[in-house]
Amino acid sequence: MSKLVIVGTVAFDAIETPFGKTDKILGGAATYIGLSASFFNVDSAIVSVVGEDFPQEHLDLLSERNINIEGIEIVKGGKTFFWSGKYHNDMNSRDTLATELNVLADFNPVVPQAYKDAAVVMLGNLHPIVQSSVLDQMTTKPKLVVLDTMNFWMDCALPELLDVIKRVDVITINDEEARQLSGEYSLVKAAAKIHTMGPKYVVIKKGEHGALIFHNKDVFFAPALPLEEVFDPTGAGDTFAGGFSGYIAQTEDVSFESMKNAIIHGSNLASFCVEKFGTERMVDLSKEDVYARLQQFKSLTQFDIKL
Amino acid sequence: MSKLVIVGTVAFDAIETPFGKTDKILGGAATYIGLSASFFNVDSAIVSVVGEDFPQEHLDLLSERNINIEGIEIVKGGKTFFWSGKYHNDMNSRDTLATELNVLADFNPVVPQAYKDAAVVMLGNLHPIVQSSVLDQMTTKPKLVVLDTMNFWMDCALPELLDVIKRVDVITINDEEARQLSGEYSLVKAAAKIHTMGPKYVVIKKGEHGALIFHNKDVFFAPALPLEEVFDPTGAGDTFAGGFSGYIAQTEDVSFESMKNAIIHGSNLASFCVEKFGTERMVDLSKEDVYARLQQFKSLTQFDIKL
Repeated sequence: MSKLVIVGTVAFDAIETPFGKTDKILGGAATYIGLSASFFNVDSAIVSVVGEDFPQEHLDLLSERNINIEGIEIVKGGKTFFWSGKYHNDMNSRDTLATELNVLADFNPVVPQAYKDAAVVMLGNLHPIVQSSVLDQMTTKPKLVVLDTMNFWMDCALPELLDVIKRVDVITINDEEARQLSGEYSLVKAAAKIHTMGPKYVVIKKGEHGALIFHNKDVFFAPALPLEEVFDPTGAGDTFAGGFSGYIAQTEDVSFESMKNAIIHGSNLASFCVEKFGTERMVDLSKEDVYARLQQFKSLTQFDIKL
Repeated sequence: MSKLVIVGTVAFDAIETPFGKTDKILGGAATYIGLSASFFNVDSAIVSVVGEDFPQEHLDLLSERNINIEGIEIVKGGKTFFWSGKYHNDMNSRDTLATELNVLADFNPVVPQAYKDAAVVMLGNLHPIVQSSVLDQMTTKPKLVVLDTMNFWMDCALPELLDVIKRVDVITINDEEARQLSGEYSLVKAAAKIHTMGPKYVVIKKGEHGALIFHNKDVFFAPALPLEEVFDPTGAGDTFAGGFSGYIAQTEDVSFESMKNAIIHGSNLASFCVEKFGTERMVDLSKEDVYARLQQFKSLTQFDIKL
C-alpha cells in the first residue's frame, strides 16, 4: 500500500452559516484531507500539532480510519489551534471571527521515520516554512508533491511561499488566489505564469463552479455537483485535496490522465463535505455513497458527440 | 431539412470593453442566434424588424448564411433598434449606456407562411407578448419551443412573461435571472420551481462558469472553454441559444441525451463569439474551427473512472 504524508492543521473550528452555528468542533486542513484520503487504499500519516485540550476521541477517529497519528505532536499544557468564521448568505464569502494560533505558533513538523519514503506528500495549508521543512525530511524523492496554500501566505510570507512552490509538482489554489499569485485575471494566463514558478500541474478551485487542472497546454475541468443546499463549505477545499492526493497515492499513477480522475474524485468527496457541519458528513459517509455519486458525476459531464 | 424559426432583435450595437470600443455594428439576439444556428444543417428564418437605416450588406450577410429574411420587416423612415453598453474590467458585469427601441416599439412579428410548420421555434429575448404572438402563428405544434428571456421582462412584464413561459419546452436564462424568477438561491431548487411554471427543460447559463440543463431529477453540465482572453461577451448567450436550437432542429431529436449534445454545441459556438467584437468572429468562423474545438470540449470534460 502506498504511503501518503499529510501535513496541515488539526484544530478546533466554530462555524456559523445561515443554517445554524456550532460550538468548537473538530476541524483543520489535515483532518479533512486525512478523512477524504481514507476512502482510498493508502497508508497515510498526518503530521501536525495539537494541545493537551484536544480530545482523545478525535485522535481515535483518525486512527480508526487507518490514519497514522504518530506525527501529531501533543503539546503538554498547550492549546489547540482554533478558528472561528461566519459565512454570508451566498456561502461564497466568510468573515473570520477568531484565529488563535496557540500551539501552531511554534510548530516544528516531524515526519515519522516510516513515512520518510512516502510516495505522495500532501502539503496542506500552513506556513510555507513548515511545508518546506516536511519536504526536507523526506529521504527519497516522492513521486508527487502537492501543495495547498492561501492568500494569507501571499500577503505575509511570499518569498518563503515562492521557495516551497518551486519544489512541488502540483499546486491547488482558488481562483482569486491564482489571480493574486500570478497578477493575471485570465485563469489560463494565471496557470501559465504559475507553471513558470515551478509546479507542472496547476489546480484552480472555483468552489461551486468546479475545478480546473492545467498542465502545459492541456486543461481538464471537474464540475462541482449541483446541490440543493450547501450547508457548510468549511473543509471543502481540503477534502478536495485529500481526494486528489489519496487517489494519486492509491494508483501511484502521476500521468495527466490519472490527475483528471483525481480531481473528479476530489470534487466528488467535496460534494459530500458541504452537506453537513464540519467533518460530520465525511465521518458518516460510506464507500457505497461515494461510488453512487461518482456515477452522478459521469451523468453530469459525459456526452456523446461523434467527431 | 428541418425548419427553425428565430424571433429576436436585429439591431445596432455600440460596445466598449477594456480592449477597445466599436461604432454602431451589427448586433441583436436574432442575428447571433441565426449565425450560430447556420453551422447546422437547418432551414432557418428570422422574424424581426429593422429601420430604413439598416444596411443591405447586413441583410445580405444573413441571406448568404442561408437564413430566410422574409420575416424581417423593414420599416420605411424607421430607425433600427440600438443598444450601447460598456463592460467592466472583469467582463461579468456591464452598464447599459443607451437603449433606443425605435422600430422595435411597434413590432408586430409576422412568421412567413412557409415557416408556420417549423419543427423548432427559438424565441430570442424580446417582449413576451411578441414571443407569444409568434407561437400563436404556428399552424402545427413545433417539436420544440425554446425561450430566452432576461431580468428586464421579469421586472416590467412578469404576467406576460409567465404566460409565454407556460407554453415553452425549454427556457434558457442566466443564474441571477433563474434566482429572480424562482425566488430560490440554490440553482437546483430554482430549476425545480421553474419546471412547475411550464418548461420541462431548464437551461441555466453561468457565463464563464458554463451552463446547466435540468430535466426533472436529471442534470447535465457544459463547461465554458477556459480562454486566454474574453474580448467581448456581447451575444454569447444568444450564440449559445443558436447552437442549442440549431442542433436540435438538425437532429429533430428532443431527448435529454440530445439536449446534452446541444448545450455542448452551444457552449462551443459561444466560446468563439467572445473572441472578437460583436459578430466578427462568428462571421469568419469555419466549420473546421468548430469541429476542432469540439474535440477540446471532449478533452476538457471526458474522464475514465471505471464504476
